[in-house]
Amino acid sequence: MIAGQAAGGAASRSCPAAPGDRDRLALAAWSRLTEPGDRPAFRFVAARGPAQALAAVVDGRDPEVAPRWRLRLGQCRPERDLATLGRLGGRLLIPGDDDWPAVLDELGERRPFCLWVRGTLPLSACLVRSVAVVGARVSSGYGERVAADLAASLADRGVTVVSGAAYGIDASAHRGALSVGGPTIAVLACGVDRVYPRGNERLIERIAGEGCVMSEIPLGCSPTRTRFVLRNRLIASATRATVVVEAARRSGTSVTAREAIDLGRHVGAVPGPVTSPQSAGCHDLLRDGAVCITDALDVIELLSPSGEGLRRRPPVAAADHDGLAPDDVRVLDAVPVRTPAAPYSIAVTAGLDESTVQTGLARLEIRGLVVQARGHWMRTPRAPRRPAAASRPRR
Amino acid sequence: MIAGQAAGGAASRSCPAAPGDRDRLALAAWSRLTEPGDRPAFRFVAARGPAQALAAVVDGRDPEVAPRWRLRLGQCRPERDLATLGRLGGRLLIPGDDDWPAVLDELGERRPFCLWVRGTLPLSACLVRSVAVVGARVSSGYGERVAADLAASLADRGVTVVSGAAYGIDASAHRGALSVGGPTIAVLACGVDRVYPRGNERLIERIAGEGCVMSEIPLGCSPTRTRFVLRNRLIASATRATVVVEAARRSGTSVTAREAIDLGRHVGAVPGPVTSPQSAGCHDLLRDGAVCITDALDVIELLSPSGEGLRRRPPVAAADHDGLAPDDVRVLDAVPVRTPAAPYSIAVTAGLDESTVQTGLARLEIRGLVVQARGHWMRTPRAPRRPAAASRPRR
Repeated sequence: MIAGQAAGGAASRSCPAAPGDRDRLALAAWSRLTEPGDRPAFRFVAARGPAQALAAVVDGRDPEVAPRWRLRLGQCRPERDLATLGRLGGRLLIPGDDDWPAVLDELGERRPFCLWVRGTLPLSACLVRSVAVVGARVSSGYGERVAADLAASLADRGVTVVSGAAYGIDASAHRGALSVGGPTIAVLACGVDRVYPRGNERLIERIAGEGCVMSEIPLGCSPTRTRFVLRNRLIASATRATVVVEAARRSGTSVTAREAIDLGRHVGAVPGPVTSPQSAGCHDLLRDGAVCITDALDVIELLSPSGEGLRRRPPVAAADHDGLAPDDVRVLDAVPVRTPAAPYSIAVTAGLDESTVQTGLARLEIRGLVVQARGHWMRTPRAPRRPAAASRPRR
Repeated sequence: MIAGQAAGGAASRSCPAAPGDRDRLALAAWSRLTEPGDRPAFRFVAARGPAQALAAVVDGRDPEVAPRWRLRLGQCRPERDLATLGRLGGRLLIPGDDDWPAVLDELGERRPFCLWVRGTLPLSACLVRSVAVVGARVSSGYGERVAADLAASLADRGVTVVSGAAYGIDASAHRGALSVGGPTIAVLACGVDRVYPRGNERLIERIAGEGCVMSEIPLGCSPTRTRFVLRNRLIASATRATVVVEAARRSGTSVTAREAIDLGRHVGAVPGPVTSPQSAGCHDLLRDGAVCITDALDVIELLSPSGEGLRRRPPVAAADHDGLAPDDVRVLDAVPVRTPAAPYSIAVTAGLDESTVQTGLARLEIRGLVVQARGHWMRTPRAPRRPAAASRPRR
């Protein structure tokens, strides 16, 4: 339709679009005419409505139309694009659609015009409980294992794992989610009919089949450095929290983290060996206030700041002195293991008043930790204890 | 002297002590009569002066004298203790001595009565620039290596490394400092004439020879659980910052960190693999606000909050687009590598106004990143670039 009008004026094809469809087609066109994050374009479209604004670009006489918006009019065939997308099993989401992720509106003038989506996952619903798991392309085996485990564990709890389908951490995160049949979304920096990087073709096709692949870049377009950087703002804004698993210093991943912080999202970082350059960016993030993430429960806690998701730390094997008052610990430590001793002698060892020792011994006896015979006390021979190390004092 | 008076009333030995020595002997006695952190004892001594207070304990009729303070009078021979300490090359420090670490006064009523010290290091001066490097007894090879490297690097910069001479991280920290001939101090939970743990005997003797071994526990005394816990308050208060290298969850090391926080000291934690239980306590500390420490420069920065110690992050190899304005990055990305293109074509690819592209190309030409021939532009064939990965867009 537009290409017909602009690039040569050949007879327009019939255009039986409903009013809603007109906006849909116009927004698809706008996503091709502009690069992501073109604020003047956003304002122009917001002021006139998508279709009117597009007509002004085609017309070209409006002084508010930036020349750059007309450069790609010749490539602009939104009806054909939507037909192609439909054949791929995809759909175009525009603001106002039921499935449009309202969180993206927080990007303001940097909001995408539309989302090109492949996959049947209910996008908006899935993003309500979602986490971006992102990181370095050049990752370590450690980072990949942690990313996969974290994503699997999150997806298993119904959390949608969002990432960028890049090599390394991103791919591991998607694979982890898929491994448990959990929801996962890939946000691309190219058209959803393209595969980048090539080596992840099977993975991206699998995500499109079982999860969801989305992009603000129209069909057929390649990624560029700028598109990668701006894609990261989508990942950060679409999710409730961003977790960086591995990142080199000053890497693209830090852009995603910065976006997430600016948008008021939670940011977590997974620590790693300080000897690993792949973890250096994560350690920088930790120094800058990111939350230390060691497993999925830490992430769940991050998603539930009101407290309902507070993790129960795994219980530690109980020691004899757990829950004892400090003086009673000192009494217990002063009670001999083998040869029973009088309270006075225990008091000398403990440095406590004899009366304190007497009442302490009574409490310890109730807990089964000490026994007495004719006024002399010793540790209960078969009191439940931890193996070996328990008798050594802890530092 | 005291033992003679209290335990049987046998003829007192001659006592030719100067007034200052009387207080020194009395405080040595108080450190034996009480366990560390006996607040009523501290208040009693502060109110009456060490010697007077001790005389009241010996006399026993003062109702403010706690019965527990009299239990060890029979073991109390401070003159003999100081003679023994002298033979070990040691000295007893009391508040007011030139070498008394004034920072310990911040412990208030939990301040030790005195310090039993072996080694010739000027204690007070060394602690002005000191760090506690502590951690798990059951450590990993990773943790031990990091502790040793960190301590060596700190000691090499004149920072005194303080630790507890325990197995694992503590021992590695001391060894690291000794390896570069740097200052190190071991704070023991037993008398400085005792060796605990046995396996570190050679290490502790070496620290006494080249660094300093100190304790508030008098000669001959063994460590107890309580003494370990209270020893940690000394480590935390004596140093400017506490760095935990490895720690299991809920370990004794966390007590030291807690003390350091309560005393307003800096607390750092070294991250490690999330798969390592030895790092779990460090990750808990990071979650609770400890500073992420990856090397000695991070610690130096911690010690210099005013900014003069701010580390210079290691430089990262420069990329083509470093320092370019965002639009110029987009122009550069749209300039072909092999076949020169017209500004209009570059503008279509970049999605930028042609005028923006023209001025951008001019700037890029000045930086030597692009070349033109007859109005067509391409990347400079031999522009300095990073190997391989540089041409791939970063995420």
